Parts: sequence; C-alpha cells; structure tokens
Amino acid sequence: MTTDVSDPNEIDQRVFPPTARRDPRTGELLLGAVRTSALIAQYGSPLYVLDEDVARSRARRIRAALEAEAERIGTTATVYYAGKALLCVDVARWMAEEGLAIDVASGGELAVALAAGVEPSRIGFHGNNKSEQEIGRAIAAGVGTIVIDSEIETERIAAAAKAAGVTQRVRLRVNSGVHASTHDYLATAHEDQKFGQPLRDAPRLVAAILAHDGLEFVGLHCHIGSQIFGTDGFRESARRLMRVYPELARLAGRSIPELNLGGGFGIAYTSAQAEDVPTIATVARELADMVADCAREFGVPVPHLAFEPGRVVVGPAGVTLYTVGTTKPVPLAGSDAAGPADLGYGERLYVSVDGGMSDNARPALYGADYQVRIANRTSDAAAALVRVVGKHCESGDVVVQRDVIPEDVRPGDTLVVAATGAYCWSLASNYNYLPRPPVVAVSGRGVRLIVHGETEDDLLAKSVSWRPGGAVHTASSQDVVHRPSSGR
Amino acid sequence: MTTDVSDPNEIDQRVFPPTARRDPRTGELLLGAVRTSALIAQYGSPLYVLDEDVARSRARRIRAALEAEAERIGTTATVYYAGKALLCVDVARWMAEEGLAIDVASGGELAVALAAGVEPSRIGFHGNNKSEQEIGRAIAAGVGTIVIDSEIETERIAAAAKAAGVTQRVRLRVNSGVHASTHDYLATAHEDQKFGQPLRDAPRLVAAILAHDGLEFVGLHCHIGSQIFGTDGFRESARRLMRVYPELARLAGRSIPELNLGGGFGIAYTSAQAEDVPTIATVARELADMVADCAREFGVPVPHLAFEPGRVVVGPAGVTLYTVGTTKPVPLAGSDAAGPADLGYGERLYVSVDGGMSDNARPALYGADYQVRIANRTSDAAAALVRVVGKHCESGDVVVQRDVIPEDVRPGDTLVVAATGAYCWSLASNYNYLPRPPVVAVSGRGVRLIVHGETEDDLLAKSVSWRPGGAVHTASSQDVVHRPSSGR
Repeated sequence: MTTDVSDPNEIDQRVFPPTARRDPRTGELLLGAVRTSALIAQYGSPLYVLDEDVARSRARRIRAALEAEAERIGTTATVYYAGKALLCVDVARWMAEEGLAIDVASGGELAVALAAGVEPSRIGFHGNNKSEQEIGRAIAAGVGTIVIDSEIETERIAAAAKAAGVTQRVRLRVNSGVHASTHDYLATAHEDQKFGQPLRDAPRLVAAILAHDGLEFVGLHCHIGSQIFGTDGFRESARRLMRVYPELARLAGRSIPELNLGGGFGIAYTSAQAEDVPTIATVARELADMVADCAREFGVPVPHLAFEPGRVVVGPAGVTLYTVGTTKPVPLAGSDAAGPADLGYGERLYVSVDGGMSDNARPALYGADYQVRIANRTSDAAAALVRVVGKHCESGDVVVQRDVIPEDVRPGDTLVVAATGAYCWSLASNYNYLPRPPVVAVSGRGVRLIVHGETEDDLLAKSVSWRPGGAVHTASSQDVVHRPSSGR
Repeated sequence: MTTDVSDPNEIDQRVFPPTARRDPRTGELLLGAVRTSALIAQYGSPLYVLDEDVARSRARRIRAALEAEAERIGTTATVYYAGKALLCVDVARWMAEEGLAIDVASGGELAVALAAGVEPSRIGFHGNNKSEQEIGRAIAAGVGTIVIDSEIETERIAAAAKAAGVTQRVRLRVNSGVHASTHDYLATAHEDQKFGQPLRDAPRLVAAILAHDGLEFVGLHCHIGSQIFGTDGFRESARRLMRVYPELARLAGRSIPELNLGGGFGIAYTSAQAEDVPTIATVARELADMVADCAREFGVPVPHLAFEPGRVVVGPAGVTLYTVGTTKPVPLAGSDAAGPADLGYGERLYVSVDGGMSDNARPALYGADYQVRIANRTSDAAAALVRVVGKHCESGDVVVQRDVIPEDVRPGDTLVVAATGAYCWSLASNYNYLPRPPVVAVSGRGVRLIVHGETEDDLLAKSVSWRPGGAVHTASSQDVVHRPSSGR
C-alpha cells in the first residue's frame, strides 16, 4: 500500500521506469523523451507504453548478474526471456539482441520468436499440453530445448524427433514440492497441480527419455511460483533437484549438464513493495552459492544454470496511460468494505478511466496492487484516497485498488499506472467490446508503434452477419470512434 | 460438486442444453441435431457451440414469465437482454426477434445491437464511465434509455440531448445497499463500489435530472449481484427503492413510471447447483408480489417493471468443446491441496485440453465450477475424479475444478463443458497467443458460424514488425496451424 507518500505527485523510480520524469516547467510526465500528452494525441487512450531502453537494460543487467555468479562458481548460465509475460516481434528481437534466449509456451509464441529472427537453438519450448502439431513445428524449426511435462510427451517428442531424423535436446519438468509466493514458501512432498512430474518419479522418467536415441536429456526443470521476493524457496527447490542428480548421472552414464530453476522473480508494483524486492544480484548470488554447495555435497559437477525471467525483465519497463472520465466520492464511515487504513481517510474517491479489466486483468484475477499518478500535471491539492476503476459493466473491474493522489483529479486528466509491462497486454480481452490498446515503445530517440491497437470495426467484423456500413441502423461515420493508429 | 453421479456419461439436461443428447447407437453427443465430431471436423477445436433454439426459447420463456407476473399485478414489464454476457449480431437479432429489449454497456455493444437491426428505442445504455462520444452516439442513434451512473453524467447527457434537440429518457442507478450472492444476501447502509449513487442521495440527484428539459426521468435502477439463486435480496432491494418513490413523485409532480431491478439471476453450472436454482416463474412471482405490496404500502402506482437478465438467457444454451491432449494421475494422499471429498478418490486425473483460461476465464477469475463429459463416446469404465486444465503456462489455468467422468478418458477424446454460453467468449483473451475459438449456432436445422474464430496469423499481424512469410525463420507453410473456419 502506498498511503504514506509525502508527495502524491512523486514518480517513484523504483516502481515507474527510471527514465520516467516530470517536465520541471509543466509538471507533465515524460516517458523516454516523450510527453504523455503527445503519446495520447498520436495513439489514443488507453495506451500501453513500454520503455525500450529500460526493457533492454534490465535484460542486460539480469543476464550479466546471473552469468557473473555462474562464472564465480565455475559454470555458465543461460537466461531465457519468458515470452508469456509480453511477446511481440520487437520485444523478442530486443531480448535476443541483449543476449537472452527465449522461452515460448505455444506454437503462436514460437512463431513470434522465429519471426523476430531469434536463433532457433536459443528457443525453449514449454507447456503442459503441446499438440503434436506444435511439437512437430518446434522440431522442424530446430528449437534448442523442449521441456517434457508428462510421460505421454516423452513418447510424442521421441516419435517426432525420429520422424524428423534429428536428436532433440529435452528437459524434464518436475515438481520440487516447493511453492513460493511473495514473502514465504511452502514445501510439500506431493503436488496437486497440472504442471510437471513428481520428483520421486524423475529417475524412472529420465530412464525412459534416455532409452530414446532421438532425445538428449540435458537436465531437470522446475518452476516454484510467481512474483517471489525471497530466495529461500528457490534455494530449497534447487537443493531438492540436485539431490537427485547423482542418481540421474548413474542412469545416464555421464553427468547431467544443466539445471533449470525457472522464473518467478518478483518486482515492485508499489512503493511499499519496493522496500522488499531483492536485487537480482542478491538472488543470483544466493542461488549460485546453493548450487555450488549442493554440487560439493552430492558429488556432482556444478551444472550449467538456466533461468526463465519474464515479469522482472519487462514488467517495470511498461506503464499504461488512461484518461479520467468520471469521479465519485464515497463516504467510508459505516462501509463494511473499507479496511481500517482506508477509514482514516473518511472517503474514497472512485476515479473511472477509459479502460479496465480488459487491458489489465491482474487486479480481478489475482487481487494485484498497482500504483497510479496524474500524468498530465502536478497539483498542490491535498492527497486523496483513490480507487481507479474501469468502464466495464462489472463491480470487480478495478485497475488500482488503493493509492493516494491529489484530490483535484478530474475528468480529462491522464493517469499513469506503473509496472504494467508484464501480463497486461498478454492477458487482455475485448470484454464489453473494448478494443485492445496499442503498445508503443518509447526511448531516448522517440516513440514507435510495436503492437497495433484494435478498432471497433475489428471487433464488429468478428460477427459473421456484420457488414461494414450495411446494417439497418448504423451510427453516422463521424460518430464512429477510430483510433488514430488503426491502420493495419 | 458432482461427485455422486451414478452414471459419469449422463448428460444432465438441467445443466447441458436440453436439446443435447447422446446418439443411442454410438454414444456420441449431439448438439441441436449435429454430431460433435462433425462440428469439430468443420470448425476446429476448441469450439463454442450455442444452441439457437435453446437461447430463443429461454428468452421467450423468461419474457413470458416476467410479463405474466407484471400483468397479474396490473402493470407491464420490459426484459432487456444484458449484452455483456454474449453479444454478436446474430444473438442480438435472436433476442430482438423474441421480444426482448437489449442492454449495452459501451459504444461497441451499441454498434452490435444497431447492426443487428434492434429498434433503437428498445436499447438501454449502461456504464459507470460512458465517454462523451458514446453518449453522443447513443443519443444520435435514438436509444430508448440511458442509465445515469454519476452526477457528472447528468450534466453530460443533458448537454448532449440539448445539442441534439431531443428529450432523452434516463434512469438513475442507485445502490440499494443490498449485495446478493448465490445463496444469501447482505444489506448495508453504505456502498463502497464503483457503480451508482447512494439511495439517500436519490431525491437530490433526481431533482437535478428533473431540472433539465432535455431529460425525462423514468425511474430508479439497481443491480444487486450476479449468479443469485434466492429472491430475498431482490425483494429487499425492490422494497428499498420503492420506499423512495413517494418522495420522487412529489419532486416530479407525477408518479414515477418505472422500476428497473437489473439482472443477476443464477443458473446451474453443475448438477448439484441444479437442485437450488429457482424457476424464473418463481422469481417473477415473488418479485411481483413484493412490488405490489410496496406500491400499496407506500401509496404509489405499481410501476412498469424492467429486468436485465443475461447469463440466465444464454448461459445454459452454450457449451464448449475441447480435445484432450494429455492426462496425468496425481496421488492425493498427503497432498495439502486436496480437500476431504477429493481424498476419497485416492488420485486426481489431470486432463489437459487445447484451450483454457483464454477461452474461459471464469474459473481463474471467480473460482467458478463447471461440469464436463466425454462427448465423442460413452464408456463403462469406472468413474475418476478429474480436473480439466488448459494449455496455458499458468497453474491457475483450470477449466473444470472437479468432476467425475470415465477413467479411460484419453488423448483425442472430445470433452464438452456445460453452461459456457455467458461470459466465456465475451471475456476471452489471446494469452500465450492462442487464437480465440469461433462461435457456431446449432439448431434443429443444422449448424451456422456466427462469430469468426481467429487464426495464428491474425495474432501475429498485431506485431507491427511482422510480415507474412517475410521473417527470417518461419515454419514451413504446412506446419502452420490454420483453423478450417479461418476465412474472414
């Protein structure tokens, strides 16, 4: 929660892209080198804005930190960008140019990575239910590694590799029994979830993999959760996996070359969370220490390390711009829904914007917190407790549950919501026929459209019986809303 | 929960469309008059299937029940189909043909209704944050009623009506303080939510509306929740609203003609829920009785009644077909995640299908329950506890949390999930670059595509830097998955 800010105009660069700053003359927010008002004038509202420089520098720093720690313990590391967080041709290209490999979870994500020119050997293919077509496409493209998620898949991938006359590198996804969330973790013996195989079955399953000439087993994979701040869960999981490596090495007649610890590294969505997020250097060091310790203890070589960060790379590089439509104060005294901290404010100001759960489903899906600021100006007005809500016909349509901004926020103001680079565009819907906003990339060099927005006509055209302009009752053409960026 | 079915092949017609039945020779499920295998062969998998006859007959029966009860208490009723549940040109046309009015919540939904030829005077326009453009379009189109959600909107709508030189009928959305869920309701004095105005402010706000020549105030509107089985919450809310009617009548110098009680009528997603769902006739009778009682008690004429059902009209008319990709048994003994009822089964069979949270977000968003059957065959195999999961890279990607089907369910089987007609297509996303499935309408006369599905190329084309076939590394054309129904 971010209710104790001294200045409700402050752009906290631990939460917003560090390039975001206010114009000292006008108070308007600049993203990259671009005024937010210019972005909205050119591309419409709402708008996803991704800072290319920030995304690239985060990718570079994360890779450097993980590689440096791997080198310190005598091994190497591969950092896969987890494409599911936000994938388009440009983002995939940026990641590849910054030296990251790419993880894809479907044939469509694979196609994007290939279209971006990502070297196929630098692509990992994931998923609990890859179709035979997807497996065939991945092998035909020459993807570096496929993650096996079930016994059925071992046979499917082996058959596909044989048919293609290739040897396919594979990992086995296991459940370590470790489930981590932001601040703590739980370790169990059994797993009641869709992904992966029980760790105790790993020897049997690896033996089955090794029996196929067309499969090259490179190591175990696990993923312990999302938006994790601590390292204890990662360390416990790494230890559980490595404890099995001696047995797997005996089965293989060679050491197991690689250990993939997945992703899940958390970011600060709010200033309060910023206190708790460890640096990637800290996470990397503690994980590397654990792997080195385990290698010694279990008498195996230190494996090549692989990681799959997504949110931590692009999340803080993105913001969403919205335009305020209405405001509504609600007294909190006597409201059952208001928490104790809220009651100190006396009232909550509901601020409705021109998007909502269609462009950011995370508050509705996960109860996620976000931080918001007025972007077009600063204000000396007192701080108000606000809830930013969308325009959807649903009471759970919330963008920012709780933050504090100047109380004179008014219709026409631009709001900026921080840390929306990951899992916002990728989970977006057209609920209530709202067109999905475009994604633009800003940088020190300017602005560029990287993902087309949709027009209302794009959505209407999904109806088989719809004809452009041919309907009985259509609004006149000047009433039809077209985004400035609609052409495609 | 549906763990006590005697026959795990049974198609419970209280949950599935009542036209759904198994071919007595082959055991295959027929929807309308169409074999599920023929549907998938023609339109691909996954596939949304909407039974037109069922949707139409439900619309007809709901309207007839509400109109009959209104007539019994000496008034009339308007039934608005809540378009947000599922809207396309064909569905809007069906609803209009069955005598329903239509509720829209955005300019896009308005455009669909108009394109379907819905009489503009039969359209209601909703939303907590209508843009000035949307208000202008609605008035220009001649929509019957606009629901005012905030003080700001009164002025905006009045200004737009004046500019257009028309008198616009309006309702005022109030918070009755009643929040209803499936089995019970809560009544509070205050409201901490984005929609509507406090009931105690209604006289002041209605006076402001009445002060505008261009606005014709027709009555109060409230909406108390979703997926409601009981009528107590509706009755309490109706009573609270009508208690204010004498004062509003004094302000207006005439009686208030209308009362809009919104929607929220629940449906049976599972056989267990089917025991609890009241008939619409019961709901209508109890509501009408309350309104008649209140009119007597408060000394006002019985108002015209308006309702806004969505889910209860189309939800049970729809199913989703999926194809099984993988299965995975997980022992439940010792699993912390398994509930007591699950443990009786010893293991849970995870069944992965070719869709998931992208085509049905409700389990992830609301923890919603669904019922599932094998569609392509029946089986004498023992009953297994299953969880149907999707192919997304997320552990919360669940389609059916818990049901019981034959344990020999296997890759290639078609699964049918019941009651997906509402809030599935409308909330669908492209997470992990999964194309959204088409919607087909079945009936006694055959099958017809009503909403185009997407192709992978549709999604790739959203990347500005993508060029068809022009990328550095593309899969060969025969590897690219195209839906049979891709042309548009």
